[in-house]
Amino acid sequence: MITPPRAAAFLPILDWGRRYSRDTLTSDLVAAVIVTLMLIPQSLAYAQLAGLPAQVGLYASIAPLVLYALFGTSRVLAVGPVAVVSLMTATTVGQVAAAGTAHYAAVALTLAFLSGGILLVMGLLRWGFLANFLSHPVISGFITASALLIAAGQLKVILGVKAHGEHFFALVWSLLAHLTQLHLVSTVVGLSMVAFLFWARKGAKPALIRLGLPPRLADVAARAAPVAGIALTAGLTWQFQWQEQGLKIVGNVPPGLPPLTTPLWDLALWKELALPALLISVVGFVESVSVGQTLAARRRQRIEPDRELVALGASNLGAAFSGGFPVTGGFARSVVNFDAGAQSPAAGVFTAVGILLAALLLTPALYFVPQATLAATIVVAVLSLVDLSVFKHTWSYSKADFAAAAATVLVTLGAGVEAGLMAGVGLSLAMFVYRTSRPHIAEVGLVPGTEHFRNVKRHAVQTDEAVLGLRVDESLYFANARALEDRLNEAVAQRPALKHVVLQCSAINDIDASALESLEAIDARLRDAGVVLHLSEVKGPVMDRLKGTALLQHLRGQIFLSHFQAVQALSGKVVVAD
Amino acid sequence: MITPPRAAAFLPILDWGRRYSRDTLTSDLVAAVIVTLMLIPQSLAYAQLAGLPAQVGLYASIAPLVLYALFGTSRVLAVGPVAVVSLMTATTVGQVAAAGTAHYAAVALTLAFLSGGILLVMGLLRWGFLANFLSHPVISGFITASALLIAAGQLKVILGVKAHGEHFFALVWSLLAHLTQLHLVSTVVGLSMVAFLFWARKGAKPALIRLGLPPRLADVAARAAPVAGIALTAGLTWQFQWQEQGLKIVGNVPPGLPPLTTPLWDLALWKELALPALLISVVGFVESVSVGQTLAARRRQRIEPDRELVALGASNLGAAFSGGFPVTGGFARSVVNFDAGAQSPAAGVFTAVGILLAALLLTPALYFVPQATLAATIVVAVLSLVDLSVFKHTWSYSKADFAAAAATVLVTLGAGVEAGLMAGVGLSLAMFVYRTSRPHIAEVGLVPGTEHFRNVKRHAVQTDEAVLGLRVDESLYFANARALEDRLNEAVAQRPALKHVVLQCSAINDIDASALESLEAIDARLRDAGVVLHLSEVKGPVMDRLKGTALLQHLRGQIFLSHFQAVQALSGKVVVAD
Repeated sequence: MITPPRAAAFLPILDWGRRYSRDTLTSDLVAAVIVTLMLIPQSLAYAQLAGLPAQVGLYASIAPLVLYALFGTSRVLAVGPVAVVSLMTATTVGQVAAAGTAHYAAVALTLAFLSGGILLVMGLLRWGFLANFLSHPVISGFITASALLIAAGQLKVILGVKAHGEHFFALVWSLLAHLTQLHLVSTVVGLSMVAFLFWARKGAKPALIRLGLPPRLADVAARAAPVAGIALTAGLTWQFQWQEQGLKIVGNVPPGLPPLTTPLWDLALWKELALPALLISVVGFVESVSVGQTLAARRRQRIEPDRELVALGASNLGAAFSGGFPVTGGFARSVVNFDAGAQSPAAGVFTAVGILLAALLLTPALYFVPQATLAATIVVAVLSLVDLSVFKHTWSYSKADFAAAAATVLVTLGAGVEAGLMAGVGLSLAMFVYRTSRPHIAEVGLVPGTEHFRNVKRHAVQTDEAVLGLRVDESLYFANARALEDRLNEAVAQRPALKHVVLQCSAINDIDASALESLEAIDARLRDAGVVLHLSEVKGPVMDRLKGTALLQHLRGQIFLSHFQAVQALSGKVVVAD
Repeated sequence: MITPPRAAAFLPILDWGRRYSRDTLTSDLVAAVIVTLMLIPQSLAYAQLAGLPAQVGLYASIAPLVLYALFGTSRVLAVGPVAVVSLMTATTVGQVAAAGTAHYAAVALTLAFLSGGILLVMGLLRWGFLANFLSHPVISGFITASALLIAAGQLKVILGVKAHGEHFFALVWSLLAHLTQLHLVSTVVGLSMVAFLFWARKGAKPALIRLGLPPRLADVAARAAPVAGIALTAGLTWQFQWQEQGLKIVGNVPPGLPPLTTPLWDLALWKELALPALLISVVGFVESVSVGQTLAARRRQRIEPDRELVALGASNLGAAFSGGFPVTGGFARSVVNFDAGAQSPAAGVFTAVGILLAALLLTPALYFVPQATLAATIVVAVLSLVDLSVFKHTWSYSKADFAAAAATVLVTLGAGVEAGLMAGVGLSLAMFVYRTSRPHIAEVGLVPGTEHFRNVKRHAVQTDEAVLGLRVDESLYFANARALEDRLNEAVAQRPALKHVVLQCSAINDIDASALESLEAIDARLRDAGVVLHLSEVKGPVMDRLKGTALLQHLRGQIFLSHFQAVQALSGKVVVAD
């Protein structure tokens, strides 16, 4: 099954590394500085979202970036902690370990290990196609619902209340119920940060230019707005010692290189984590591939889904062995990397060096960073993921897609991320199968002056009362075999003059064993009624399998290349001979 | 959704009852006598298989028969305990109650109540189509595996050993391991009965005719062979008091009318029984409808699946309120009823009267019936259900169907009936979805002298290097949208002279929201490459939905009624104008 690829196919660095130039180096270095400034607060925040110490977020942004640079096929994807995967990590790990313990961190990196293994195996088996089973509406719904879940959870941190709820609605209700007990300093710090970040998105760059900065520098400085906000709130907290009034701060962050860690070798735990790890892998892969493809298309490059699986697998294994937690290619950071002009995966390596320096030197400065500030950066980041337009589009185009998106959102909010994702995928597959189980069957007639046949109900066509042409608009398989039998029984009963039935098979892409039996039964029943069954426009792959079956051996009728030839031959017979 | 039917539609008795004649009465009475003789031992045996007292089997054959006669649409279906449903009952009830207790019997009739309710609701919602999701290979595999499971369980009774096993393989192993401890009298009685019943199937009628009986009487007498065998072994047991040597006998069977019972109103229990009840309902319905349809077709009658659901629902509710357990339309008894000449559902009512008389008068005679004798009648009945030919057929025609059948058999034997059924249905749906996710995409060319287009790889056809015709042999939906994108990217990259791509949509029966987005992306990408995308032969239902979408608003190309018109128009343009 697996064809052995050349070395460069699995190590794209051998390809782009050879052509690396000084110009590319400059572009990559500038992009790395910008992305590093953005990633430091984000890494801390997502670690907090995942229920892990701040430094774990930094560790998870170092080895994975380097490993992706070695194996990845996207030139600009930035791998590290992302919002949805961090939420899924928190949900999963929270079920088997107590928050804040060493065991919790160990379970989180074991989850990264399992997820990495799953991704790697899927990549080696070339199972990238599995991601196709997440439809666009389901992904949209899932991301939107996850963003709302995350925002509600972080709002709790901003307000400094002890709200809790089994699901989104209970959490929101509990937040409202605890509103009177909000922690004033925390709320003011958090909401100010939210306001500042929303303003900074569009307002910071023009403001800096007005202050006299050259546009290029203003751009870099504007992207550092979160860092500035964090520095400012940390400085104020230190100045006024707000932590003594109960403001929660990041606290001690041990400085140093990422530690060498090993996952827990506990088969019972692995079993428990297997399904969540699979879902995290698939969600992470889909998010990463979507971002990678979007950005690659803008520069007419391509990414290879199966090799992306390998690269993400390696990244997660890297996270597992360097004190991290599950990672994937993130949307925001990759777009920033792209916009900042990154030309090659080397930009990722330079970013990793930047974060490594932060982990070594910057941690004492993080002591006074309020948790509410980090929560604010998460809220602002995830609210941009909420996309309600999918409901509008699908409502007008396809109610089935709308139902899948709506179910994904409601179940995710009401019962959690795993249940939501599975409900979405399950429902969209169920509706696809349901549709195919009730095939559209049209009686066809000749469009005058052509050799083309169309539905008698929609076009002015010629028909012959002795020859019934039926087009089944679906592959024939167990779920719809009976529908064809019923329709044919009906048609034959209604037409006493009928001599021939021609099944136009242009839309039949497959006939399974159950449907084959049904066709044999149909042929036998028609024969008893004095009607001959013919087939037309049977496709090559279908015909190949029908050869040698009892159906073709017993069939009295013929198999015509085109429906036109069938009708010519059969109408001729009826008119001229009989 | 539900159109109100006329009274006769829900009570077919109003239809056939009005035309009831003396001839029909005679036919029905004769059939009833034959079926009663067959049903008495079968009812006792299936009660034993379900782990219930013998009289419960009789009760379950009275009210259901009458209720089916009122509501059913088949003229000859005989409803009562059947092998597979009895096995499923034993498995389910055994998990929540101890065998031999009053609670066990109460749970069994609660299961009948739930199953009846499910069937009734499915019928009123017209959900008969759900049965279509059980493919023929899965049903075959399930019946075969259940028959093996039942035979192994009854072999334990025949041998009189204490073997046990979590699944079929363990049970067979345990039977072999306990072979040295077999109970001699039980084994001899049981195996003699098996041999006698196998002989009686074909040998009894000719032998009786040789003894001078008229053929018609010989036929009835031959069908009474199981009764004769039971009477003989019971007589011998009484004579030699084998029960004192440890031969297990039926024992005290209280005589009387079926009791009026009520199901347990215990919501926790209902929750536990819900899934098994659903599976029992579906399996019972599928078995019943298959038998009903086969027999109806032989006399050119029809049955209505949705009304069959209602009738089976009523039958099971009847069983629940008259001391029974889950029932359905049985294969063997229905065939016997048909062969014996039953003309109307009244035969079922007469049979019910026969069994009622047996329950009132015959029970003392059942005291000495050895359990091994009943086990023998079950073994002989179920072994006729084992059908290995499905593996041969599907292996040569469709490996996917073979895999579904094999998985159903192996999981049923290895993990039980519920798991086996769900594995079979799940796998067959998964393989269908997998197939549709990798569509066959053919480049098409004109068959010379016609207006018909076929695959360039299989036919000698004409093509134009500026116009690429592609036929996608599958509906476009989320799981295969990417495959089309990839194929088109590839095709465009390979053909520098390409100006037009025409998608022949004759096999596209649906385009979902994800695929619509993909088509928009394809159109945009082709436009950037200077290629125009056209569609041809778009079907009515698909076109209806595409109207008003962004795709059609932005599409530079045209939508052609036939692919021939498209190629004529586009090739013309290229040759003449440019």
